Amino acid sequence: MKHVADPSHPRYKSLLMRAKIEAAAKAGLLAESALIAHGRGEAFDYLLGERTCASAMQATRETAARLMKAEHPIISLNGNTVALAAEELMKCAALIGADVEINIFYRTEKRMELLLSSVSETKDLIKKEIPDGFSADRWSRMVESVRILGSEPNGLIPGLKGPRAKCHSDGILSADVLLVPLEDGDRCEALVAMGAEVIVIDLNPMSRSARMASVTVVDELTRFAVNLFEELKNPGMPDADWDNQSILNSALNEIVQGIAK
Amino acid sequence: MKHVADPSHPRYKSLLMRAKIEAAAKAGLLAESALIAHGRGEAFDYLLGERTCASAMQATRETAARLMKAEHPIISLNGNTVALAAEELMKCAALIGADVEINIFYRTEKRMELLLSSVSETKDLIKKEIPDGFSADRWSRMVESVRILGSEPNGLIPGLKGPRAKCHSDGILSADVLLVPLEDGDRCEALVAMGAEVIVIDLNPMSRSARMASVTVVDELTRFAVNLFEELKNPGMPDADWDNQSILNSALNEIVQGIAK
Repeated sequence: MKHVADPSHPRYKSLLMRAKIEAAAKAGLLAESALIAHGRGEAFDYLLGERTCASAMQATRETAARLMKAEHPIISLNGNTVALAAEELMKCAALIGADVEINIFYRTEKRMELLLSSVSETKDLIKKEIPDGFSADRWSRMVESVRILGSEPNGLIPGLKGPRAKCHSDGILSADVLLVPLEDGDRCEALVAMGAEVIVIDLNPMSRSARMASVTVVDELTRFAVNLFEELKNPGMPDADWDNQSILNSALNEIVQGIAK
Repeated sequence: MKHVADPSHPRYKSLLMRAKIEAAAKAGLLAESALIAHGRGEAFDYLLGERTCASAMQATRETAARLMKAEHPIISLNGNTVALAAEELMKCAALIGADVEINIFYRTEKRMELLLSSVSETKDLIKKEIPDGFSADRWSRMVESVRILGSEPNGLIPGLKGPRAKCHSDGILSADVLLVPLEDGDRCEALVAMGAEVIVIDLNPMSRSARMASVTVVDELTRFAVNLFEELKNPGMPDADWDNQSILNSALNEIVQGIAK
């Protein structure tokens, strides 16, 4: 990746994310389909102008509000999510008081172990990244309270078959608000059917996950995670009349306008 | 890939291509970035409705005409091209009387060897796939006459640095019409600057390759290759007033209309 070291490249951030994904693949954190999925995301982000549009920011604010008000919020992490935004999402979990659960589509014990150990290292790391307005001690306790679930699944997501159904009964299975970035359509549907509020991050506003979710943030994951962290410092109230379809329509309009330019 | 065996799946062909690319990656034929590039293509093909639009068919006819009329046509093959459409493109080379040249962006000797041997196997294989209207003997001689270049590059593409510049002086370097499916923007630019007519297959009508090329086919590679083979059986004359920009505009319109639906 010759361009990665050159921040003047117009697509520097996108190339940096690509390098992160490639490194994670080499380290064994990802299924092969994960690289292809990342490429699909790249294409949609390219069409969106590689920026957070207004409707995505609105959905991010709604996400912050719902996670903060939840009784049992869970952030689900898969391979791509860990590769791209483990730090930012773990920091969000600390602010929310949420647990995280490693939950992957092509579940193998080897990849689960690698991901669990990677997220555990991230947890240690972010203790030292004390946000403005927090004492080192308070922040450290907040980070420490985030449980990393996934190693001993004792529940099954109803309606899914095989290893991909496995989850924690005190994690995903009992969540009232679930943040599942970059989620597969089948799984998203099964989680919604469980009755949880499901928030997805998906750059394709036409995907099944995007259409099934309670709240869809059509944004690149790392931009979303940074924005979410800021919003969580001063969250509003959930919107009782939330219209997710209008959010999807806005994203589609942004894409069409970007192409028509 | 649970869906691959199920032809009733609405996206069966796309999933089949994905499986081919994943298998090629496992076999060591591809650079890591190749999977991500495939994903970008998937997203654009999804937006195009996974079908060959009229302007792509028009560009395919122009491609057939130009390749048939060329004095020294070359089909350049990279990892993704070999993984997805080696058979179809080798059959096209036989009809045209073109040579093929394996030419990859992230050139390593190991990957070159694997690709050369894979294409050589393909050459043996297609001798047995005799098209209607050809005698076995004639077809076998046509296939046999296709040289597979790439193993001993003795030339450099001007304007490129490092291993990616390597090519054959009696191949890419002296071609008057070059078919380079799925080509990188830098390389496409360098090939055009050499003075050759460059034909690219690119699902993103806004990419630099798409915009630089003499003829751009905005279509999925395997659909294109099958169509090209049919057109080569009865090619027309090149269009002296070929307007590639109008082809790109048509493809953009198809995408926008697909989204707006």
